[in-house]
Amino acid sequence: MKKYNIAVVGATGMVGRKVMEILEERDFPVENFYPLASARSKGEEVTFMSKKYTVEELTDKSFEQDIDIAIFSAGGTTSERFSPVAAKNNVAVVDNSAAFRMNPEIPLVVPEVNPEDLEWHNNIIANPNCSTIQAVVALKPLHEKYKIKRIVYSTYQAVSGSGVKGYNDLKDGINGGENKFYPHQIAFNCIPHIDVFLDNGYTKEEMKMINETRKMLHDDDMAITATTVRVPVYYGHSESVNIEFENEFDLNELKSLLAAAPGIIVQDDVQNNVYPLARDAEGKNEVFVGRIRRDESVKNGVNLWIVADNIRKGAATNAVQIAELLIKNNLLKRC
Amino acid sequence: MKKYNIAVVGATGMVGRKVMEILEERDFPVENFYPLASARSKGEEVTFMSKKYTVEELTDKSFEQDIDIAIFSAGGTTSERFSPVAAKNNVAVVDNSAAFRMNPEIPLVVPEVNPEDLEWHNNIIANPNCSTIQAVVALKPLHEKYKIKRIVYSTYQAVSGSGVKGYNDLKDGINGGENKFYPHQIAFNCIPHIDVFLDNGYTKEEMKMINETRKMLHDDDMAITATTVRVPVYYGHSESVNIEFENEFDLNELKSLLAAAPGIIVQDDVQNNVYPLARDAEGKNEVFVGRIRRDESVKNGVNLWIVADNIRKGAATNAVQIAELLIKNNLLKRC
Repeated sequence: MKKYNIAVVGATGMVGRKVMEILEERDFPVENFYPLASARSKGEEVTFMSKKYTVEELTDKSFEQDIDIAIFSAGGTTSERFSPVAAKNNVAVVDNSAAFRMNPEIPLVVPEVNPEDLEWHNNIIANPNCSTIQAVVALKPLHEKYKIKRIVYSTYQAVSGSGVKGYNDLKDGINGGENKFYPHQIAFNCIPHIDVFLDNGYTKEEMKMINETRKMLHDDDMAITATTVRVPVYYGHSESVNIEFENEFDLNELKSLLAAAPGIIVQDDVQNNVYPLARDAEGKNEVFVGRIRRDESVKNGVNLWIVADNIRKGAATNAVQIAELLIKNNLLKRC
Repeated sequence: MKKYNIAVVGATGMVGRKVMEILEERDFPVENFYPLASARSKGEEVTFMSKKYTVEELTDKSFEQDIDIAIFSAGGTTSERFSPVAAKNNVAVVDNSAAFRMNPEIPLVVPEVNPEDLEWHNNIIANPNCSTIQAVVALKPLHEKYKIKRIVYSTYQAVSGSGVKGYNDLKDGINGGENKFYPHQIAFNCIPHIDVFLDNGYTKEEMKMINETRKMLHDDDMAITATTVRVPVYYGHSESVNIEFENEFDLNELKSLLAAAPGIIVQDDVQNNVYPLARDAEGKNEVFVGRIRRDESVKNGVNLWIVADNIRKGAATNAVQIAELLIKNNLLKRC
């Protein structure tokens, strides 16, 4: 079996570390491994597939090395600066930042949803926003069958979505400490504010959910609104999703479609208190869907409760799946 | 000034104690005070308006005493059993339980919303569900002006809504303890399950929001759906509320209507990170509204974020306000 040279950019961050963990778990065919990070983390040691590596500083020269795929998880500024350099050197970049997601020349991909978009990549593939990934995994089979007319998203997002700083703010807050990262205390609170506010009164996170859903479901006119909220949960985003379809549906058929779709586990036995929970989704790679019930307030409406590990399927797992698909479908330019 | 004889049923519970606190805060004109509870709490001491009282056991004979108003916060079974006895003795009952809320012969009242319904009471007045109270305070002025067509509720509800047992489950869970009351751990988790599940897949809590909103806004056909979720917050329910109006609206006018409406404080200066928060609402009697923004996914749509102290406005404060209005509008049958 052919093996590949893999770089992880942001190797010391929360998502970068999880990417390495998932590459290991999935026995990714790694030949050489290049952990890269900013100058600040240069020289740190990381362990990957039972070997110790010293983190190298990310520079333009990094991509003169023999690298097949680079998974970037170091923020938008780093991606904007270094992804084009990597791409020019024929390194396939899977980018976790928001920098390129809405660029019409760059595919935005969830492998279960729109694998076909990988085919027109030009060495940069954008990994979607965490809250959008888990939503579209559940929406795709339903959109295909019943055509989605409108979506109302309300999210319950974990602090790990903000990385270590968010995690620490919750941990400190629980023990009576001051918030250092969030604008308000997150412990025992709900903060309806993720990413920055835009002129239209929405946050960037809310507009990401709206725009990225449209891009991946290939429907620029899909009616969508969103309210995104940070909650005092360490891992696992939960979402209350209200959907209106163009076409009629049978509720049992809809449940069967979800259960049969890739990457989804239906947990919907309410009489036995079975429904998706952030605590249960932690450490899993699937998207969990439950509380599936007809919304009688509108023609062809349904309510779903969608939960996933935001660091795994919402970030690292999806990025690794994209890398796997690039290999499987022979889409690496340098090979 | 005339003074009144007041009983609090469930005087040792979380809401009962808060009712006493609020009667004090608002200088309620109390002549004699009767703290009542189940046999289990009989003999306990409570302090009210600087006097000590011994809790008496609630029996049929309790209402043979000279009582003008009884505020019940002891659960549905107690209300069903003893409210009719009190009413028959011409005691005006303000009932915090769900027992009578949807009874068409019993008014369900939020003083800022439908004070006119108090006029046809027959000695029992139902206090609405916590999550519904705060929603309708914000919806009323908007419904009056723009006529609400459809509502999608998603809630973020505090554990104090379950009383001391819910509170303790969160406190224990934070410290690694097992959940004793909720079916799952609530610490660092979101549980999409409040009250029991019904055959239609909705919880009772969700159907309360739907049915009680319709009853108080006097529109049995209003299209409403709801997803109600318990979050790891001690005090303060938050709600993501998506509304579609029949009529067109101007966003600034809508904000002004909310700001001018009774019982509402608008907190909506997102550029300065000002929006309603459960932590800030704790200990307040008002309903806080923010994140007010047009929903472009539907004609005449708006998104709101509505927060209130669920034990105050969501329960005790509203009950005391009803008692105040009964006095002010001369609606006590025995007077």
